Amino acid sequence: MRIAVLGTGSVGRAVAARAAELGHQVTIGTRDVGATRAGEYAGWAAQHPEIGLATLAEAAADAELVVNATNGSGSLPALTAAGAANLAGKVLLDIANPLDFGAGFPPTLSVVDTDSLAERIQREFPQAKVVKSLNTMTAELMVRPRQLADGAHSVFVSGDDAEAKRIVTGLLTSFGHTDVIDLGDLSTARGAEMLLPLWLRLYGRLDTAVFNVKVVR
Amino acid sequence: MRIAVLGTGSVGRAVAARAAELGHQVTIGTRDVGATRAGEYAGWAAQHPEIGLATLAEAAADAELVVNATNGSGSLPALTAAGAANLAGKVLLDIANPLDFGAGFPPTLSVVDTDSLAERIQREFPQAKVVKSLNTMTAELMVRPRQLADGAHSVFVSGDDAEAKRIVTGLLTSFGHTDVIDLGDLSTARGAEMLLPLWLRLYGRLDTAVFNVKVVR
Repeated sequence: MRIAVLGTGSVGRAVAARAAELGHQVTIGTRDVGATRAGEYAGWAAQHPEIGLATLAEAAADAELVVNATNGSGSLPALTAAGAANLAGKVLLDIANPLDFGAGFPPTLSVVDTDSLAERIQREFPQAKVVKSLNTMTAELMVRPRQLADGAHSVFVSGDDAEAKRIVTGLLTSFGHTDVIDLGDLSTARGAEMLLPLWLRLYGRLDTAVFNVKVVR
Repeated sequence: MRIAVLGTGSVGRAVAARAAELGHQVTIGTRDVGATRAGEYAGWAAQHPEIGLATLAEAAADAELVVNATNGSGSLPALTAAGAANLAGKVLLDIANPLDFGAGFPPTLSVVDTDSLAERIQREFPQAKVVKSLNTMTAELMVRPRQLADGAHSVFVSGDDAEAKRIVTGLLTSFGHTDVIDLGDLSTARGAEMLLPLWLRLYGRLDTAVFNVKVVR
């Protein structure tokens, strides 16, 4: 697949590198290509020559699947810059969490309970096929789940489009996920996003980010 | 221990029966003893003659540990009826979830993100030692965790008083819990309460309430 990964942070890099390793054609989208190339991204990029770098709009325009790996607070601006027309009809895998660090740690959620970031994105880009997933674990586990308990833990998908969820599930499975739980329509992303406050407290107690929840049943 | 269980519903009955089975002296507290005795509670009570029934205030007055097993919306009124003086200095194990079914299913949370029901209770009854726990699973798993995966799943405790958490952890362990995770102070109960929206969606997908999360690390 041609995959655009919007966001140059740890999540974007992890997803881009893993997808490229699996044979996908990957372009990372960034707000300012020159500034990104001039920054510490350059060192990482040198190790991943197969991964392209383009503007948000260029990356999205050329992709079949778009990954939102931006910060929650920057997601709507970044997707707006990517362009509604460039997202139309495409699977939009949303990994972002609406964390608000305005009052320090622990962060609160900027959208919660009766709405979710995923639903906001879907309302803003009604022609995209938004699927929420992977936001409930640290970046390295998203793409290499087998490194923890040989993958015996769970990942959730939420979305209104069954085919889009099937495509995302296929990608997750190729990453190594063995327990992909389809929670239902996109409003179920509220539950997945609301796991973050617990995740952050567990992170504080466990002294590692390499943990995940398994739904035992 | 002398344990008061406030609430006559499925959670209250499960905790009361299990604690009595383990040798504790258990009294269930209810708003109206006569009405409870006249209702369907009578059939359950006949099978548990060792468990007392009293008013909320009587039950709390006589107890060393008080369990809040009322509905989230009824918790503050029930605890007020139990009486601040009767809760003072005691461990108050809060199992309630602030679910608001006002807009139908799925419920929203009546307190969320920047506050929690547990913290509200603590503020209202500053002399009680509030510990949040067990609210993240179905009643029968709370008290018999070994019935699922031989207990290989997690339960959380949150609270400001270390000794109170130690006492609750002991009770949980006696129930059969093997992975009791101390999240930290009582504000961490926000995370535990915010797990409910995900729990409810999983309940809808898994066709059983007998599931739980395990924190794999």
